[in-house]
Amino acid sequence: MNFKLEEAIELLERTPRALELHLTGLSEGWLQGNEGEGTWNPVEVVEHLIEGEKTNWLPRLAFMLREGDGKPFPPFDRFAHLNDGSERTLAQKLQEFAAIRAENVAKLKALVGPDPERLLERTGRHPAFGVVKVRELLSTWVVHDLTHLSQIARVLAERYRADVGPWIAYLGILRK
Amino acid sequence: MNFKLEEAIELLERTPRALELHLTGLSEGWLQGNEGEGTWNPVEVVEHLIEGEKTNWLPRLAFMLREGDGKPFPPFDRFAHLNDGSERTLAQKLQEFAAIRAENVAKLKALVGPDPERLLERTGRHPAFGVVKVRELLSTWVVHDLTHLSQIARVLAERYRADVGPWIAYLGILRK
Repeated sequence: MNFKLEEAIELLERTPRALELHLTGLSEGWLQGNEGEGTWNPVEVVEHLIEGEKTNWLPRLAFMLREGDGKPFPPFDRFAHLNDGSERTLAQKLQEFAAIRAENVAKLKALVGPDPERLLERTGRHPAFGVVKVRELLSTWVVHDLTHLSQIARVLAERYRADVGPWIAYLGILRK
Repeated sequence: MNFKLEEAIELLERTPRALELHLTGLSEGWLQGNEGEGTWNPVEVVEHLIEGEKTNWLPRLAFMLREGDGKPFPPFDRFAHLNDGSERTLAQKLQEFAAIRAENVAKLKALVGPDPERLLERTGRHPAFGVVKVRELLSTWVVHDLTHLSQIARVLAERYRADVGPWIAYLGILRK
């Protein structure tokens, strides 16, 4: 196993600013693009990341530490953000993500305390997977960020699928 | 076709700082990880991007505009950076990438002038593909950045492949 809490936090802390830097000020054509019916544009991905901060990662960790593996934690609605309906700008959404992520990283540090190793093998109950460990939840939080960073790059690339002409043969990101 | 020069430049300009923000200060464990034999770690990806700035994108554009499609442009060695051998830090490499990218974007603007549409359908000769268009080269430059941003996210995620436990089922980025 490679997980170390302080290294995981390095990535968790970087995601909001990396997104801010990559997306702020982009033309609408980039921000509204997706990969077809039922897929998300970059703004919807940011909304999904906010939703995860509110109802998934940290809340589940707190639940696990409180309840152990006797009681499954509530399922996370991966599509909740699509019913958001609020009229905030992308800049506001990115700010919200940065703020709630910073708050959650602070809570994470407080929850696990000075000796995180002690907690990593503690268990909880996932509604679909059964018994899971704190380490698994926290490393998934990190990889989930990376999945969505990668998705945003893929969605942006999609827009030039036809434009790249024969070079598509060398562009792994456009392979389906 | 979706390509517009000013929108392409939006992304070309953002890549160096997005990488800087994502990679600077990360633990060696993150920076040295790769996806197995023959694959690149994040630092090698940055070196490859620098190499592309030096010998691929802008030089090929200049070559196309000068020579047309009568003469193939010199092939690009996609592995040249692996023989680099210099002992620069990641921060220095990121700085070099930012500097040469800024320079190339300035040259790009100068080369295509105030009416880029006029040039986008001009042609050159790719050593493997035959006749290619300026638009295809430039959109490939953008998508190539995105390919490597996505690759870096994937390489970082790889490190926690075992740590995520059963959640691997939900993490597309770890699907092989």
